[in-house]
Amino acid sequence: MHDSMHTFTASGVEGTLWSPVGEPAALVLMGHGGGLDRTHPGLTARARHYAAEFDFAVASIDAPGHGPRPRNARDSAQVTALRDARAAGRSIAPIVAEYNASLAERAVPEWRATLDALLPRLGPEIPVGYTGMTLATQIGIPLAASEPRVRAAVFGGAVVSEALLDAARRITVPVHYLLPWDDHELDRGDGLSVFEAFGSTDKTLHAFPGGHREVPWFEVDDSARFLARHLAA
Amino acid sequence: MHDSMHTFTASGVEGTLWSPVGEPAALVLMGHGGGLDRTHPGLTARARHYAAEFDFAVASIDAPGHGPRPRNARDSAQVTALRDARAAGRSIAPIVAEYNASLAERAVPEWRATLDALLPRLGPEIPVGYTGMTLATQIGIPLAASEPRVRAAVFGGAVVSEALLDAARRITVPVHYLLPWDDHELDRGDGLSVFEAFGSTDKTLHAFPGGHREVPWFEVDDSARFLARHLAA
Repeated sequence: MHDSMHTFTASGVEGTLWSPVGEPAALVLMGHGGGLDRTHPGLTARARHYAAEFDFAVASIDAPGHGPRPRNARDSAQVTALRDARAAGRSIAPIVAEYNASLAERAVPEWRATLDALLPRLGPEIPVGYTGMTLATQIGIPLAASEPRVRAAVFGGAVVSEALLDAARRITVPVHYLLPWDDHELDRGDGLSVFEAFGSTDKTLHAFPGGHREVPWFEVDDSARFLARHLAA
Repeated sequence: MHDSMHTFTASGVEGTLWSPVGEPAALVLMGHGGGLDRTHPGLTARARHYAAEFDFAVASIDAPGHGPRPRNARDSAQVTALRDARAAGRSIAPIVAEYNASLAERAVPEWRATLDALLPRLGPEIPVGYTGMTLATQIGIPLAASEPRVRAAVFGGAVVSEALLDAARRITVPVHYLLPWDDHELDRGDGLSVFEAFGSTDKTLHAFPGGHREVPWFEVDDSARFLARHLAA
């Protein structure tokens, strides 16, 4: 027997479900970063590792306008603005905040539909966690604030807006936050403010060397241990 | 065979050495917090856990003026000032910074003498780490800045002074920093400044709920994993 990978569709959005060999200990929703999609090698490596080493079932869907999914005219304009700002060495934060908020508005119902589709198959009692940085955090924070089936979450690399802080304050489940200490694109203060804002009494933060594209493998394991600790039946 | 505990004396200072069942993987110097000593139940539990689960030899000595060790007149005056400030609800930070700097000046040579005494017994090639919060951090930072035998260190709960930041800048070995997020006596900003100051390229920080007297057990294990990762032969 091997761990396995299946494609599913929920409300018209395609996703991948990685399953462990035996009964899954939990379902982990794994979001991808901005500009990537659910087939990104870093994501698939983490998903398979979580299935193999932690007995997690892992589900991932592409964000709107990412991977094979079409961009609307506003998405395209914001992607262009983002590239221009990056090329000119200007801060990408204001564009990211606006663009990701618009993506999150569409993505949150898609993650809910994913749960609706997968839970009957995995057993309605399976504990659910969420993990993902940058774009996946801009989506995951409003998701965790409004979706009681998410019982623990790993976030990181947030770009702060008042709306995001408001959503963070409404989260009361355990949260683990990743803060890449030497990130040139993300403001350290944003990470500390959103961590402070979480309404959770049980919250941990890990800062580590490098940027958000270079999360060390031991942090991937620490995040899994956090999820395992809080999702244990 | 069991793990074992021995008393040793180095330069007139008594210490305890906890040893694992087999060959130790590393020697961990474990300092105690202010007002405590090396027999504190929290410390002895961590020391035995590190020996049993991580194959570390663990050594601890009492800080000057702590446990059975005499206080000089200045120490006594500062302990009184500290108690008065605490009782009056005033910040203890300025007193702690001055008192602990004076203790550190005396304690650093004592930790060196401890290494001189233990390394011939444990094998001169055994990798050495240091761990300890609050007072043990005020002592450990100047120790790690000046003692090349210390190859990785866990700190936390620092009270910042210019001298402490200078010492932190001179540390280049891997450092792991513990930041109790809800501490009423320690300034969060002090922790972030000292973490930023460390000269180490490999540094990680963990923030967690509660104060410095309530470090969760999973952080004790994370610190051991950090030491194991960096002290592996």
